[in-house]
Amino acid sequence: MSPDQKERIDDLQRGGCRIIQRPELFCFGMDAVLLSAWARVKSADCVLDLCSGNGIVPILMDARLPEELRQEGSIHFTGVEINPVCVSLARRSALMNGQSERICFLEGDIREIFHAGAAPETPDGQCPDVSAGRPDAACASIAPGAYDVVTVNPPYMTGDGGLKGPSPERAIARHEVLCTMEDTARAAARALRQGGHLYMVHRPHRLGDIFHALQKHGLGVGRMRMVHPFSDKEANLVLIDARKGGKMYVHVEAPLTVYRETGVYTEELKALYG
Amino acid sequence: MSPDQKERIDDLQRGGCRIIQRPELFCFGMDAVLLSAWARVKSADCVLDLCSGNGIVPILMDARLPEELRQEGSIHFTGVEINPVCVSLARRSALMNGQSERICFLEGDIREIFHAGAAPETPDGQCPDVSAGRPDAACASIAPGAYDVVTVNPPYMTGDGGLKGPSPERAIARHEVLCTMEDTARAAARALRQGGHLYMVHRPHRLGDIFHALQKHGLGVGRMRMVHPFSDKEANLVLIDARKGGKMYVHVEAPLTVYRETGVYTEELKALYG
Repeated sequence: MSPDQKERIDDLQRGGCRIIQRPELFCFGMDAVLLSAWARVKSADCVLDLCSGNGIVPILMDARLPEELRQEGSIHFTGVEINPVCVSLARRSALMNGQSERICFLEGDIREIFHAGAAPETPDGQCPDVSAGRPDAACASIAPGAYDVVTVNPPYMTGDGGLKGPSPERAIARHEVLCTMEDTARAAARALRQGGHLYMVHRPHRLGDIFHALQKHGLGVGRMRMVHPFSDKEANLVLIDARKGGKMYVHVEAPLTVYRETGVYTEELKALYG
Repeated sequence: MSPDQKERIDDLQRGGCRIIQRPELFCFGMDAVLLSAWARVKSADCVLDLCSGNGIVPILMDARLPEELRQEGSIHFTGVEINPVCVSLARRSALMNGQSERICFLEGDIREIFHAGAAPETPDGQCPDVSAGRPDAACASIAPGAYDVVTVNPPYMTGDGGLKGPSPERAIARHEVLCTMEDTARAAARALRQGGHLYMVHRPHRLGDIFHALQKHGLGVGRMRMVHPFSDKEANLVLIDARKGGKMYVHVEAPLTVYRETGVYTEELKALYG
């Protein structure tokens, strides 16, 4: 499969896994790598990735799984993305990597994508949209309360502030045009079962909005980790672990430092990049 | 002046400054030292310390001032404390250190201590309670909107949880019996002028409540710093800088690490302890 001229294929340094990207739309960054390592999954989990972009988070999470968990039917990932071009990239990457039995991507708006009613009856331990686990499947909606884990790397900037760039697709990916922090928290709370976890990466400057939205939707923050580019610089990312129905009782873990010196990753970062 | 048998006098390692403590009530900890260095004051500021205990925070802040700012009338501190025994200790410490021209302590409940009406007319740059700047002065209330800076090291534990210890005084100092996070934020917002800063030290596990209460009372968090006992351990304190009427836009500063190895402070901590 050769990409068209606007595309490029990057190696993810994880067992031959690769990702198709379109630089003029969006390329994944360190935030996606950190999120994919921050999220904890276990056998038989149904994982939903919101604002999935080119699918980097579920693709990387799947690539990180130990072999026994990667068996068909053990863990299933669903990515939701509003941009049809990104959905197409994500599906083709999963297919190229042999991941499409475990990962499916839906095109849709996280504000509207839920089934109207309750979750449909599904065999025990199976995700309600698992039948759509083919890259070309027409799965048009997701079941409320059906997911054990939600991951999200949402747009960081508020809708009304900052430079939005020349393309509307880039603006949607970076700014809260179609997905505010409130939309993200509501969708996560709706998708998760009681006790299920939301794993999020965001900018520290939004912590006020983040706590407000999570608290409003019954998502109790249990763990948080600051990411600092250098050990003596302010944090530029924050990793959050919130539980549906859980208590707001925050453990702020040891900070994660990216660079030991200019251009040289810390040992922890090197391990994350594989 | 010799302390009675229940008291002890500790040297603060700052220009001969000392503090009278009663171990069975409360002794100051590292949190007070960190808060006194975290708070920023400038010439002519009126500073209010809530839940002042034995007065350690204003006493240390005053001791840290450069000589020109310590001139009479330049900066004034007021401490409010509900426990009359602590107020007496605080006043005697200030007197012993020659600080009582710049620091006064009021006995009172931060929920009730405000003047009923607006701030009284005072000469420019003078605190409304500056006339009470004597350790035995009968200053019974404070003026809303009159303070440039509020500091607070509030009780950390929620009122209904955890071991409260044998003495009611200790329980009041450690648990939210008489002063909840909500009470603290309301009192700070009421005391501060528009644009004035609240500096607080608290436990990271309360971050949800902290953001909620500050946001509700119009205090926008601008800076935050996590304090970790060791660089690879979770944070056990958080320092917060919020501005009345300011935007909620959080800069999470480089983490502060207390120990380089067991029993050995980091260089930054050594400098803070003088």
